[in-house]
Amino acid sequence: MSKKVGVLLAGCGVYDGSEIHEAVLTLLYLDQAGAQIICMAPNMDQLHVIDHLSGTETSETRNVLVESARIARGEIKDLKDVQAKDLDALIIPGGFGAAKNLSNFAINGAEAQVQPDVQRIITDMVNSQKPVGALCIAPATLAKAIADKKPEVTIGNDQGTADAIEKIGGKHVACAVDQTHIDKGKKIVTTPAYMLGPGIKDVAKGIEKLVKEVLSLI
Amino acid sequence: MSKKVGVLLAGCGVYDGSEIHEAVLTLLYLDQAGAQIICMAPNMDQLHVIDHLSGTETSETRNVLVESARIARGEIKDLKDVQAKDLDALIIPGGFGAAKNLSNFAINGAEAQVQPDVQRIITDMVNSQKPVGALCIAPATLAKAIADKKPEVTIGNDQGTADAIEKIGGKHVACAVDQTHIDKGKKIVTTPAYMLGPGIKDVAKGIEKLVKEVLSLI
Repeated sequence: MSKKVGVLLAGCGVYDGSEIHEAVLTLLYLDQAGAQIICMAPNMDQLHVIDHLSGTETSETRNVLVESARIARGEIKDLKDVQAKDLDALIIPGGFGAAKNLSNFAINGAEAQVQPDVQRIITDMVNSQKPVGALCIAPATLAKAIADKKPEVTIGNDQGTADAIEKIGGKHVACAVDQTHIDKGKKIVTTPAYMLGPGIKDVAKGIEKLVKEVLSLI
Repeated sequence: MSKKVGVLLAGCGVYDGSEIHEAVLTLLYLDQAGAQIICMAPNMDQLHVIDHLSGTETSETRNVLVESARIARGEIKDLKDVQAKDLDALIIPGGFGAAKNLSNFAINGAEAQVQPDVQRIITDMVNSQKPVGALCIAPATLAKAIADKKPEVTIGNDQGTADAIEKIGGKHVACAVDQTHIDKGKKIVTTPAYMLGPGIKDVAKGIEKLVKEVLSLI
């Protein structure tokens, strides 16, 4: 039986959704490892839409699940229909969507609210001792969701973000882009990815390592 | 001096733009090989917008360059500002956008028109004996652009598409997803990618091979 790994997406594009390279590399390394991939995203409007050429906000409205389906080639589930019991592990790619749509950490920092179904799936996975991986800024949303468990995570070395994670109740550990941090007790694996970059070959190293470690913790 | 490789994008999503996995894997293997990557796309409206969850057309209008910028993380040029003399090689990922926006092959088949700047950059690259790679359905647009040179390409083994390429004046050669076809005289390298699939680990093999071969032909 192949291992069933959920990939929780947050849209399609670094500035308002899932970081595309991080999401695709997660899929690549999972597929290469023989995992069964279950993509999912919340069925809700994005916080906003950013023109990725100019960097400015547009007047458009886009749906997180519909845009995430671009990365998943249409093979994606509504997060509300996925339960922790359906999965052996969960990975959350980064990009601003992970902190704008999956939670509002990008707006509210330590006072962020986590989207209810995101809160549910993360809590249920961790309570079931099933591994959860998070990339880039996604560890901030993860830390908020299980703040009472004081998780150890990394987002690289950005001091402001690290301070907000500590204020939430998590512990931040600095980490290089080609490395991961593992909270063994809670089976949480995190890697800085594009919080550090600089390029796709660099983030690929940490993501490949994270995928292997998440699978080994199942 | 690192080799300068253009990546010609056609939007962001398999059904109306560039196939995201193919585009990202092209960037990964180019970066791992030490190439300097120059992403580009035409500044024009997409043929249409497809909801990738339902597979149906929407009433939205999206711009090819703006959507392609999502894959390029904002680092992208307007195709009209890029000349063949700026590049050592060019790679065109697939996805329907390569046959809906870069040309209208998906609509008109062998009678397709190629977008003028796409026509220009492909013709100038081939006339300069600089290598051009194309993935998935993109070889059909490539073949149309240089039909007078009777290029040899592969799109896998789809008979209807192969027949249309032959009608254009190209020669189609069947090929497996983990392989490439090289037209040595014209320095054209093609691989079937998601025309065959089935998964990301499968298309990755052919794309990695294509990137290496394109770089070796410079």
